[in-house]
Amino acid sequence: MPSTKVNQDLHNEREKCSFKNEDFTLWWIGGEAKLKEKRSREKFFLSEPEFFDKVPLHFVSHKEVYEESVRKATVIFRKVKQMQEQGKDGVDNYMALLGGLLGSGILKEGNPLAVHFVMFLPALMGHGTPEQQAEWIGRAWNCEIIGTYAQTELGHGTFIRGLETTATYDERTKEIVLNSPSLSSYKWWPGGLGHTANYCVVIAQLYSQGKCHGIHPFIVQLRDEETHMPMPGITIGEIGNKLGMNGVNNGFLGFKNVRIPRANMLMKNAKLLEDGTFVKPPSSVLTYGTMMFVRVVIVRDMANYLSKAVTIATRYSCVRRQSVINPDQPEVQVIDHLTQQYKLFPAIAKSIIFKLTSDNLWDMYNQVTSELDKGDLERLPELHAIACCLKAVCTADAAQAVETCRLACGGHGYMTCSNLFGTYGMVTAACTYEGENTVLLLQTARYLLKVWTQAQKGQELVPTVQYLKKFLSSNQRQTWDDSVPGIIAALQTVAAGKLRLANEHIEQRKRAGRTPEEAVNLTSIELARTADAHCRAFLVQSGYEMIEKSCTSAPPELARALRDIYELYAYDEAMKAVGDLLRFTTISESDISRLQQKLEDALAAIRPNAVGIVDSFDIPDMVLGSALGAYDGNVYERLFEEAKKSPLNQEPVNKSFHLYLKPFMKSNL
Amino acid sequence: MPSTKVNQDLHNEREKCSFKNEDFTLWWIGGEAKLKEKRSREKFFLSEPEFFDKVPLHFVSHKEVYEESVRKATVIFRKVKQMQEQGKDGVDNYMALLGGLLGSGILKEGNPLAVHFVMFLPALMGHGTPEQQAEWIGRAWNCEIIGTYAQTELGHGTFIRGLETTATYDERTKEIVLNSPSLSSYKWWPGGLGHTANYCVVIAQLYSQGKCHGIHPFIVQLRDEETHMPMPGITIGEIGNKLGMNGVNNGFLGFKNVRIPRANMLMKNAKLLEDGTFVKPPSSVLTYGTMMFVRVVIVRDMANYLSKAVTIATRYSCVRRQSVINPDQPEVQVIDHLTQQYKLFPAIAKSIIFKLTSDNLWDMYNQVTSELDKGDLERLPELHAIACCLKAVCTADAAQAVETCRLACGGHGYMTCSNLFGTYGMVTAACTYEGENTVLLLQTARYLLKVWTQAQKGQELVPTVQYLKKFLSSNQRQTWDDSVPGIIAALQTVAAGKLRLANEHIEQRKRAGRTPEEAVNLTSIELARTADAHCRAFLVQSGYEMIEKSCTSAPPELARALRDIYELYAYDEAMKAVGDLLRFTTISESDISRLQQKLEDALAAIRPNAVGIVDSFDIPDMVLGSALGAYDGNVYERLFEEAKKSPLNQEPVNKSFHLYLKPFMKSNL
Repeated sequence: MPSTKVNQDLHNEREKCSFKNEDFTLWWIGGEAKLKEKRSREKFFLSEPEFFDKVPLHFVSHKEVYEESVRKATVIFRKVKQMQEQGKDGVDNYMALLGGLLGSGILKEGNPLAVHFVMFLPALMGHGTPEQQAEWIGRAWNCEIIGTYAQTELGHGTFIRGLETTATYDERTKEIVLNSPSLSSYKWWPGGLGHTANYCVVIAQLYSQGKCHGIHPFIVQLRDEETHMPMPGITIGEIGNKLGMNGVNNGFLGFKNVRIPRANMLMKNAKLLEDGTFVKPPSSVLTYGTMMFVRVVIVRDMANYLSKAVTIATRYSCVRRQSVINPDQPEVQVIDHLTQQYKLFPAIAKSIIFKLTSDNLWDMYNQVTSELDKGDLERLPELHAIACCLKAVCTADAAQAVETCRLACGGHGYMTCSNLFGTYGMVTAACTYEGENTVLLLQTARYLLKVWTQAQKGQELVPTVQYLKKFLSSNQRQTWDDSVPGIIAALQTVAAGKLRLANEHIEQRKRAGRTPEEAVNLTSIELARTADAHCRAFLVQSGYEMIEKSCTSAPPELARALRDIYELYAYDEAMKAVGDLLRFTTISESDISRLQQKLEDALAAIRPNAVGIVDSFDIPDMVLGSALGAYDGNVYERLFEEAKKSPLNQEPVNKSFHLYLKPFMKSNL
Repeated sequence: MPSTKVNQDLHNEREKCSFKNEDFTLWWIGGEAKLKEKRSREKFFLSEPEFFDKVPLHFVSHKEVYEESVRKATVIFRKVKQMQEQGKDGVDNYMALLGGLLGSGILKEGNPLAVHFVMFLPALMGHGTPEQQAEWIGRAWNCEIIGTYAQTELGHGTFIRGLETTATYDERTKEIVLNSPSLSSYKWWPGGLGHTANYCVVIAQLYSQGKCHGIHPFIVQLRDEETHMPMPGITIGEIGNKLGMNGVNNGFLGFKNVRIPRANMLMKNAKLLEDGTFVKPPSSVLTYGTMMFVRVVIVRDMANYLSKAVTIATRYSCVRRQSVINPDQPEVQVIDHLTQQYKLFPAIAKSIIFKLTSDNLWDMYNQVTSELDKGDLERLPELHAIACCLKAVCTADAAQAVETCRLACGGHGYMTCSNLFGTYGMVTAACTYEGENTVLLLQTARYLLKVWTQAQKGQELVPTVQYLKKFLSSNQRQTWDDSVPGIIAALQTVAAGKLRLANEHIEQRKRAGRTPEEAVNLTSIELARTADAHCRAFLVQSGYEMIEKSCTSAPPELARALRDIYELYAYDEAMKAVGDLLRFTTISESDISRLQQKLEDALAAIRPNAVGIVDSFDIPDMVLGSALGAYDGNVYERLFEEAKKSPLNQEPVNKSFHLYLKPFMKSNL
């Protein structure tokens, strides 16, 4: 094992930090009680010998990755149960272990039981009648049955109206008959579907009385509860190897005349009567709630994964030395190259701003949900629109930032044991799942177009788009001012300006004879950029409010550090938007030089605190899972230890020498 | 196997193409003879049953990937030899199989023998005396010995002066003694080093007569030729799993008093006499040649890998249907969404422009090399500077474009069998190897700073930087004009403007008391951007010249298509630089709208030819290696076939059910 002595450079970095780590960590985790709970949970789980890999999973076969993931997943949920029996709260445990950092630290390739908890159980709760809930939830909660949620098909993802699987009511037998009418209708992607789950909520087009009633959820048994053999008419398996998450057991599923009782249609909302009469749900907005909840969770996950990547890359950049700056001095820590700071510190800032934004979105979500319960649907489209673009921008930015962190670690970042690429695998997946990013941006853009029309008619606007009003009448450039409120106003101007232009271009195209839909498609590059700009303005504003709120109760040194982080975020976003600022504000060449200087000053302000900040994220070494990022900074020792674990290194001569190489070398080519 | 019927949508696309595929392919490959040779080579290699995987390598273990890669590599070089015996030219075969698409199609995880041919043999040729060449090259060429090239260490990569391995001359025994004085001095990364090679060219710090003479190359035997056991004093193994290229067998190597004869120091340049006297080489510029050659090859590889990714993503985007545009119409091909075109077509254009630029760079390289042979070193720094930034920009852009292609394929792009991620693994590696990209950009920037000073002194400038002269005296904005020559001039202005500013900021910092080196480091964000802008101006100009040259002899339909592609490239680069154009040219808001329109028109012009273009790249299905990108477009059939190959799908119930799941489900949690 590597020595426990801490690398001297890293030690020196820790001495420089201007705030107390504990203060930051308490703020970050959310108070004493939560921190205590987090650490006790981590201790309980991370000390479990069943979680130590004899051979790191990146050396074993695809099949073994799955088998090990099932093994660990069952251990995890046994332990969760143990904690519950000790009276320790359950919900936070599930959060930490299913989507959170702790879970991803134990199951680097994902959890084959996650969809059971994250989608199957919620689907039963959200779509089942009280009777259905009584029948299914107990068994599911106790894991007597393991379920998954099958919506996406080989040929259809984001556009769910196009799903092809059919569920046809047979009035004669009172059964529903499931079929996969084509290869492209096979369910494809659901986690745990391949070889893990024995039940499933299936989304299919309901037919009765000769008519199609759109998509609805049905409970289907996939495998025998005793033998685990697939049920008759079920074709099932896993979809194969992926860029990441190979423990998740994503599967495919085909139906051939699979009959289920009518009672297996989940009927909390729409209903199918015994005679085949279809009864519409009172409102279809309720399903939006779950989608938005998932997007809040995704933004928070992005913040977490990014905090992991920046911890690894920042610590490594302090340990690694490369090149001299002044010729008579020794090689410098890589972090002292300004270009390296510019790679890492904006990523640190993003992880913090995204986390605060997900908290903010969570508050909005709760507020809107409570309004919904009172029958007030007014803010639902607004929440939907902001959640769509935040999911798209935060996943895309996080993915890019994680890759920047990986590349900032040079060649060693390419090693699987850096765990940077593993982290990228988790993050980039979120760019396409739960709504492909471009599609989501265009959904937000469509909302903005509607709002723009409303605003033109003088209607009142909801909070997240209220700023548009200011720019309705005026075609004038916003006066540039590089204070934080000035930057927020400028970014809002950019969004408004782009919206106005996109709207004009759509109108032009309609006048030229295009249908409204064609006109929108032809303007979609601009529309996607508009939604992006709207989202960035929101992030910069929301980040400001959240940071300032935090600063009111933070110790002054911490408050200073948080403001430095926020300022870097704001300056960086402004610098990246400089082309747009030139178009829509009065920013001048000397303003740009000044902004660049402010950005560089912000980097310098963060420099002494960089290690302190990432330490304060409080991510245990086992969760980081990285030879480059461990707390002690013994990077080279750990890389070497990891290499020694390779099965290839267990014997001095590999059999391929005798089988292939030697005959080849002796063949006198 | 999937049916051989071609997908109807893809068939329809092919009908639309405005030029003859054969014309494009002949131009792309370089004439009838080359095309014939390419196809005969592909037929010879791709029909070899030894290359068909029983189980795709992404399902097997890390160790098995290596073993299979060794097996296939030996088959490849036996077949190369067979071709030579049939009188078929060797060099192009090696090019195609070592770095080219054909090789990456057969060995998706890289070739453990590649470094033997690409670096070990060239090192013997470049650094060995005639006697040394006579002794070693024959055996190496016949593969009686397999070598690698060990330069990079655990603690040192791009900054080679910092290498730590020592080679100390022992005058008493006339031997050189190699040692690894620290853990960070272990050689780390060389391909084939782990378990494949038995010889090595090692770069180490030479000590004799108590003095260090800097780094030099030494031939060291690593393993016994009969038993393959490591030689005494050698610690050797592989470095472990990586993001990609797990067949390459990257290794580590430590020395403990390893003694080699003095004659094993490669002494074509520097010499070590028997008494320990060190004789300096006449000139040190010769080693630059190899580095630049490698960078030319990297730019060409990027073009090739990108052509593979765009072929896959473009074909898939024609087969995949998603969402409706007009509500009364069926779901559209994904490629009909303008946002999708904007993801794919600039990537197509880049693959073509990068290829042409590598041809251009190749010509420059040959010219400079022939000047060098005459003792004329004048253009060497220029070539070095342009090669540095081209390597950095083309690898970074290609990596981003390949990822864009992958994400454009939605969830299915995340499947390993899409081979998009595998392609990314090859491309992103090039961002850090052979000179980390940021370091290379800063090298180009330093050259530009020097040239700027020369220009200010009125000295003559070499071709690639001549444009700077125009902008020396003037602080005025360039008049915007959206013709191609106008865009080239505008992008040159941007580079010149950024260089002027960076230079000013360095001077300011020096005046404020910073050392010149500190001033450069503090301005390095701007400097990296300056080199990037210089490179993009070069790419747009060089692309223009190369396309126009091609068009003089191309049939008119092909010439039109090539100009469309080039224009998209130029408009896209201009749009991405719009912020800079606003700073350094007179471009106005209405000019920007017009440029956006031109860009959208260019997308529309390419739309009917998209499949024709990627078909014309002439990449065989086996080289694409993608379920999403095959010529027949039977995407869903192929995805399903690939899933069926998973070892997990060979049995209906995995053992983990009995071992872990069933006990867990029956435990009444």
